[in-house]
Amino acid sequence: MPVDLASFGDDIQAVVVGATGGLGRAFVELLAAHPRVAAVHACARSPLRARPDKVTGHFLDLEDESSIAKAAATLAGTAGELRLVILATGLLHDGENVRPEKTWRSLSAPAMAAAFRVNSIGPALVAKHFLPLLSGTGKAAFAAVSARVGSIEDNELGGWHAYRASKAALNMVVKTLSIELARRKPEALCVALHPGTVDTPLSKPFQAGVPAERLFAPEQSAGRLLAVLDSLVPEQTGQFFAWDGQRIAF
Amino acid sequence: MPVDLASFGDDIQAVVVGATGGLGRAFVELLAAHPRVAAVHACARSPLRARPDKVTGHFLDLEDESSIAKAAATLAGTAGELRLVILATGLLHDGENVRPEKTWRSLSAPAMAAAFRVNSIGPALVAKHFLPLLSGTGKAAFAAVSARVGSIEDNELGGWHAYRASKAALNMVVKTLSIELARRKPEALCVALHPGTVDTPLSKPFQAGVPAERLFAPEQSAGRLLAVLDSLVPEQTGQFFAWDGQRIAF
Repeated sequence: MPVDLASFGDDIQAVVVGATGGLGRAFVELLAAHPRVAAVHACARSPLRARPDKVTGHFLDLEDESSIAKAAATLAGTAGELRLVILATGLLHDGENVRPEKTWRSLSAPAMAAAFRVNSIGPALVAKHFLPLLSGTGKAAFAAVSARVGSIEDNELGGWHAYRASKAALNMVVKTLSIELARRKPEALCVALHPGTVDTPLSKPFQAGVPAERLFAPEQSAGRLLAVLDSLVPEQTGQFFAWDGQRIAF
Repeated sequence: MPVDLASFGDDIQAVVVGATGGLGRAFVELLAAHPRVAAVHACARSPLRARPDKVTGHFLDLEDESSIAKAAATLAGTAGELRLVILATGLLHDGENVRPEKTWRSLSAPAMAAAFRVNSIGPALVAKHFLPLLSGTGKAAFAAVSARVGSIEDNELGGWHAYRASKAALNMVVKTLSIELARRKPEALCVALHPGTVDTPLSKPFQAGVPAERLFAPEQSAGRLLAVLDSLVPEQTGQFFAWDGQRIAF
């Protein structure tokens, strides 16, 4: 099903942070192809090729606040009101020092600090600089891709300490931001999203136990999440939603 | 009411981390005066005076894993089984760069990183080195002092981003640890505690709106929390409890 995005109106300006990741790229392409979308600002640490369509690339490194501020300042000068900011970033493993812990014996301060920097602090900094740009009239949304394993209530298996803790922290950041956003822009939402298990390098080492019908192509997951965002009303701000629209407990 | 601690048996060996803080010192004194307690290992970054009673001081800096490992190694050589490990540490403000944010405009990467180091990562490292020392037979407990403002569900006011996020992360760390602990030591608990608003330097700048009967002396709060720990059964591991024994949603 193609996503309508009618709730966001027409001439939608959108930002995707993490635009070169598996899920981020899928968001960029779906938005770029959408008739209601006027412009897609694709932010990433890796350089983006110039393209002739609606997509503009911006340098943004989650671990460098000045780059976030600079990308936001560039956008602030463009025409149109910002309707959608999607953070599709996340660090689960880096192939070196950071990898999901199977036991408390593997807990590592540097690995935990790296997870917090990318999964919790970086998104907070993006919010700091991009929430002020979000349209103050009509529906708008700031959505951070979190993960079901970041639900404390839902944690039955244990392990993955750093990733779980950093996504729980992200969920708290989203909730806290949503309260201030509701005061400033009552029609805008700030939510956390669970994309499902998406066939990307992030999940690659952990796909073994996932049934084929539950392993999503990035464009499937991104499409589902856009449909969820399209369905939300302002009263649902601050919450945590899965790809199927179900609310997840914190 | 004096706390019985009967559920932990006799000759209790206890560890208090953050032993020179307001709440930590209260735990140390209550435990040192308790007839069931054989030894109190008081761990802190500041040096502890030598005392002639049950209390032994150990150097421990939450931001220096080697000091945590060394304190644990010292304890591993002592007689008796470890029944209680209480983490009574926490960073809300440092009088300088770290202070509770009133708005997203005050979000700061270094302040958030400092909160995560002290409130989330340090406790995880203490668990890594002290959970293996916890008694494997009979009731034992690892308890981390968290805070109600670390409950994502309960967050209605917003603000205090770094502290809230780091305590939410701590709650996830506690939940994740509890699952591994239950496999290894089925009678042991790992829980998060909310001490109430305690009259300590941590809460000093934020006591204005707190009714007098809800501002606890440190020994009141520590006594309540020991009573809560005494009341818990293994099936309650991984949960988050307030000073009055009520469970708090994550």
